[in-house]
Amino acid sequence: MKVTILGSSSALPTSERFPTAHVLNAHERLYLIDCGEGTQMQLRKSRLRFGKINHIFISHLHGDHVFGLYGLLSTFSLMGRQSPLNLYVPQNYQSILSSHLADFDIHLNFEINFTALSGNDPVKILDDKYLTVTSFPLEHRVPSFGFLFREKQYDRNIIKESIEKYKIPFVRIPAIKKGEDFITSDGDVIKNEKITYAGPDPLSYAYCSDTKYFRRLPAFVNGVDLLYHEATFDKDLEELACITGHSTTLDAAKTATEAKAKTLIIGHFSARYKDVNVLVEEARTLFPDTFPAIDGQTYEIGKNQNL
Amino acid sequence: MKVTILGSSSALPTSERFPTAHVLNAHERLYLIDCGEGTQMQLRKSRLRFGKINHIFISHLHGDHVFGLYGLLSTFSLMGRQSPLNLYVPQNYQSILSSHLADFDIHLNFEINFTALSGNDPVKILDDKYLTVTSFPLEHRVPSFGFLFREKQYDRNIIKESIEKYKIPFVRIPAIKKGEDFITSDGDVIKNEKITYAGPDPLSYAYCSDTKYFRRLPAFVNGVDLLYHEATFDKDLEELACITGHSTTLDAAKTATEAKAKTLIIGHFSARYKDVNVLVEEARTLFPDTFPAIDGQTYEIGKNQNL
Repeated sequence: MKVTILGSSSALPTSERFPTAHVLNAHERLYLIDCGEGTQMQLRKSRLRFGKINHIFISHLHGDHVFGLYGLLSTFSLMGRQSPLNLYVPQNYQSILSSHLADFDIHLNFEINFTALSGNDPVKILDDKYLTVTSFPLEHRVPSFGFLFREKQYDRNIIKESIEKYKIPFVRIPAIKKGEDFITSDGDVIKNEKITYAGPDPLSYAYCSDTKYFRRLPAFVNGVDLLYHEATFDKDLEELACITGHSTTLDAAKTATEAKAKTLIIGHFSARYKDVNVLVEEARTLFPDTFPAIDGQTYEIGKNQNL
Repeated sequence: MKVTILGSSSALPTSERFPTAHVLNAHERLYLIDCGEGTQMQLRKSRLRFGKINHIFISHLHGDHVFGLYGLLSTFSLMGRQSPLNLYVPQNYQSILSSHLADFDIHLNFEINFTALSGNDPVKILDDKYLTVTSFPLEHRVPSFGFLFREKQYDRNIIKESIEKYKIPFVRIPAIKKGEDFITSDGDVIKNEKITYAGPDPLSYAYCSDTKYFRRLPAFVNGVDLLYHEATFDKDLEELACITGHSTTLDAAKTATEAKAKTLIIGHFSARYKDVNVLVEEARTLFPDTFPAIDGQTYEIGKNQNL
């Protein structure tokens, strides 16, 4: 799994930073998270294939996370998309979107399946071949939701030599990979652990933006491999962060620490910061494995970020 | 006067071409024409000052000409804008915009003065210190309007030597620059032409997008210095141009010829063209002074385009 940052600005974009959008690539399926203005142009720049996007998650109804959606949906349609699109959005957005598309006489030639985000507890909103996705509440000025993407347990790998040794027929291998023991033609039970070894650990990615520091959050994303947490402001602007419902560098780092995250990426930077390294350095005083979100950059999940 | 192209794509942007937006700089006042997705990021890249924009003109209600407006208005507000903004839009857009801003809980801290575009004839929609702006109908799938920006007549320049020669008091000079004769203390009438020479010719810029070939158009923009005319397709796609309400290269060149334009810029290029020079070459067979719209490029009006 890897995540590409399409935009790392907060509400005011800069010449270097577009509004928020992330693309998670899990097993060559693309999951788009938030869709700020310019997302479709950033997708093109990053050479990510539009046709591989079947799920779009919108965290909350502020323009810098949504205003790229109208253009992207039009583009899908112009490109001839026919497969349904799954859209996970705060609950009152379905009618807003539909009426705005109608205002512009946009008739999509594909269906949208809406899932409404709401409530105060984590909810599993997607369960496909490779992943589960859970939404959970954040704490912002308007209802805002984070998303946890968790790979499913990998199959066990078969030890190649054991196939010959125990004369395992190929037809039995899928079940063995799922953990079953093997019974030989003589009726001997060969324990699964003897003929397989564990697959890779499933990885996870959590997206938390926009939010102020929220004490329930670490439990929602406990043990996550890569935590993206907004850090709009530096530590000296704690009061402004609180008023506007955003986080400081230290809020993000504290959450990462409490969640026992492996790696933290901070982003959603205020336009006042030309160089975001000062923000990264601040976060590292609490959580050393912190890295900045940079437009166009891809981060491998579960690997060291060499930035 | 000069015009900066912020976006030269048609509905499908590419990695090189953003959706449509132009900025006319006339005497250091900026006039924004259309506002496709990403306009505010392109403004930043071109280092154009947001605060100098007091007039925005929207040609028609297709997303690739409008979807950057929500973000731009939010940004104006976040940057503390208080001066009113003049918005010239097709007549049903005022309510669409207001309701969409309300959906996103966007409260602008400045006023918008709306001018509704409608009708089948040219209408003067702006008359300020330096310019008049006239809107006129185009021919597209939805009501679409072009805009003609025309500098006002410059004052005449006074011949410096004549000030001493005729003992002209400074207080009289503004009137003489406007064309008045000078009467000496002896009562002699000095004809204006003897003591002044003409100022520079006023320049003009016309924006025509989206439109198919429209026979009334040349009269609306007759003699214009710089004509921007869309040319979405090459000449072989005439039928597609007609169906979609767009122009070919030859439609644009024909209009420029009939309008006796000095220079033609074509743009709104279909994503199918990687290299737009082939389109420019086609247009040049009819209208030699044709140049391509290129994102980020600025074109001096009334001067040779050295591209």
